[in-house]
Amino acid sequence: MREVAVMEIGQTPVSEHWDKSLLELAGEPILEIFEKSAISTVESIFVGNMMSGTANRQLHLGAYVADWVGAAGAEALHVEAACSSGSAAFRSALMAVASGEVDSAIAVGVEKMTDSPSAEITSKLANAADADNERDMGVSFVSLNALIMRRYMEVYNWQREDFAGFSINAHANGVNNHNARFRFPITKEGYAKAGIVADPISVLDAAGIGDGAAAVLLVPLERLGKTGKTVKIVGSAAATDAIAIQHRKDPLWLAAAERSAKKAYSQAGINPSSVDLFELHDAFTIMAALSLEACGFAERGKGPMWANEEMISPHGKLPIATMGGLKARGHPVGATGLYQIVEAVEQLRGTCGKNQVENAKIAMTQNIGGSGSNIYTHIFCLAE
Amino acid sequence: MREVAVMEIGQTPVSEHWDKSLLELAGEPILEIFEKSAISTVESIFVGNMMSGTANRQLHLGAYVADWVGAAGAEALHVEAACSSGSAAFRSALMAVASGEVDSAIAVGVEKMTDSPSAEITSKLANAADADNERDMGVSFVSLNALIMRRYMEVYNWQREDFAGFSINAHANGVNNHNARFRFPITKEGYAKAGIVADPISVLDAAGIGDGAAAVLLVPLERLGKTGKTVKIVGSAAATDAIAIQHRKDPLWLAAAERSAKKAYSQAGINPSSVDLFELHDAFTIMAALSLEACGFAERGKGPMWANEEMISPHGKLPIATMGGLKARGHPVGATGLYQIVEAVEQLRGTCGKNQVENAKIAMTQNIGGSGSNIYTHIFCLAE
Repeated sequence: MREVAVMEIGQTPVSEHWDKSLLELAGEPILEIFEKSAISTVESIFVGNMMSGTANRQLHLGAYVADWVGAAGAEALHVEAACSSGSAAFRSALMAVASGEVDSAIAVGVEKMTDSPSAEITSKLANAADADNERDMGVSFVSLNALIMRRYMEVYNWQREDFAGFSINAHANGVNNHNARFRFPITKEGYAKAGIVADPISVLDAAGIGDGAAAVLLVPLERLGKTGKTVKIVGSAAATDAIAIQHRKDPLWLAAAERSAKKAYSQAGINPSSVDLFELHDAFTIMAALSLEACGFAERGKGPMWANEEMISPHGKLPIATMGGLKARGHPVGATGLYQIVEAVEQLRGTCGKNQVENAKIAMTQNIGGSGSNIYTHIFCLAE
Repeated sequence: MREVAVMEIGQTPVSEHWDKSLLELAGEPILEIFEKSAISTVESIFVGNMMSGTANRQLHLGAYVADWVGAAGAEALHVEAACSSGSAAFRSALMAVASGEVDSAIAVGVEKMTDSPSAEITSKLANAADADNERDMGVSFVSLNALIMRRYMEVYNWQREDFAGFSINAHANGVNNHNARFRFPITKEGYAKAGIVADPISVLDAAGIGDGAAAVLLVPLERLGKTGKTVKIVGSAAATDAIAIQHRKDPLWLAAAERSAKKAYSQAGINPSSVDLFELHDAFTIMAALSLEACGFAERGKGPMWANEEMISPHGKLPIATMGGLKARGHPVGATGLYQIVEAVEQLRGTCGKNQVENAKIAMTQNIGGSGSNIYTHIFCLAE
């Protein structure tokens, strides 16, 4: 397959967008890309979205969005992989261009969640869990993650406070990102006192929902040439695991993260030590720890050792959540994967201002669907 | 890209499957394929489904289904394009194998609709229409199609009875298909007296919903060799049009059908006259007429001239709905595209018994999402 590069990116601040319809939200970053690239249409559009059918009573987002942005006629498809829908859309667009089927493809992730009461959203998010074995027992995604975190603390002997550094880093980075929803720093003391949502998970362990959309335009690398700050995709892999946590071999190990990361490393021809920054899926602090372990950065059971500035800040050993992560940028579920990718591209282009990772040449993103059952890993680097 | 062939097919009778969960329904044709092919897993699975989130409160069907059939670890993704979700899954699987990304991919289409009251299903199906311009005005898909049919009758001077032949053919063929939901013949008189759902559409113009699932296993052609009855894919294209009918240039012309069919003909290197059978999207009789026109078979405005045995029966000029079509086989929306493809493969393999199209060498399928806004066309032929 041929090499593919990111031609342009677009994103909307994560917020409560009462003034925008689902369609306007989805269209905005695409029209931003059209304007920046001086183009007026695209051959194919892949829309990542989890819950428009249940939360917005609108399905069929492929044709819906294509029509709105003036690309009716194009191939357009809605893909859904729970919270990893955005990366699934990205991978679909990547395959379309890499295979030679089309010469331009847009991946857009969109989610409009704040129109609905939050109890309703919590219930609708649970449609991504196993209906028979999880959701109908009354668990939500917060409680599923709380079960994992509690067990992890028990087995590996950690305290709740040991996870604080993940959220402190995310919030510190979110302050400088004008697209982030929560632009305020938090402290260790604040974390310790934060209200518990599902013990041991507090509001400062959990990413907030939001409305948002982000998009990228992919084209063959040869179209852009290899000069300047062109970002190309060198690794793309997806893997699944049992959807119900109780059916997994080890509930404290993200097997699908390991599998997709190993495949992506192999495609890129790199080791974890070559990665300059890692936009991981910190929907909950426990997930940040588990991702670092499964992807070969932290040792098994030692993830929380990374929860400090020396390790994960933009100037640390492995910067994560560099623009705020899910925790502070916000987590409009189906859009999140594309925000991660847009931020990775910004880092490689060197446009991240105060949050810039120096000499960033290789960036990795990882997007988790469900409580670990559908995981996408992508690796990007500067074309040279 | 490399050539791709259908290694095996599986399907469940369209029915009211009270005894099966969504998961059992989706898994059944995949396990049938595993058994027939003597394999136990597959590299990737694409699940076509429209409304599991709203009707079954279960999203994330990629990982859900992969896990159930014992393929956890595989890449798995849910795709949605309203009633063309099944063909969207097929095209995604095709791209995955054709590009060389994987050596085996299953596309499965599944829909479980009869658990919900039918008024609720009608309302949930309307999520595939334009929320602002159609659905919120109170129209359903039946009434949208009724508006198109009435205008078509007015503009081109046809009577309701002129469409009867489409349903009579579909029901005659459904009698011999043990996977069909409505296995009884109908007559011109019966059609004339049928109860009106939304004038001029009667129950005998409209396809019934149902529960069902169908699947295909795709592999590189070279793996199967070119001897015997190997079916390969020679054309695959998707195109969109405005989602709201009022936004289309001509509400009586399926522009996306024309566009995707022309592209598929060109890929296959054929003209419409080479097609031996055409599994079209007869969700409503008017759609059968419009598809025949847009794909270059009937002249514009003359579709109903084809609604008779000489033209469309298994022994006619261009057999359509050869196993009952959406009308008599039943229309479990997200599964329909894969039933069409499975039936096209059966025809090319020569296993259709009383409904066999003699010397069938080239088969075409076309699957319509919404009222014409997302259309997939595929062309299959025997590898020689």
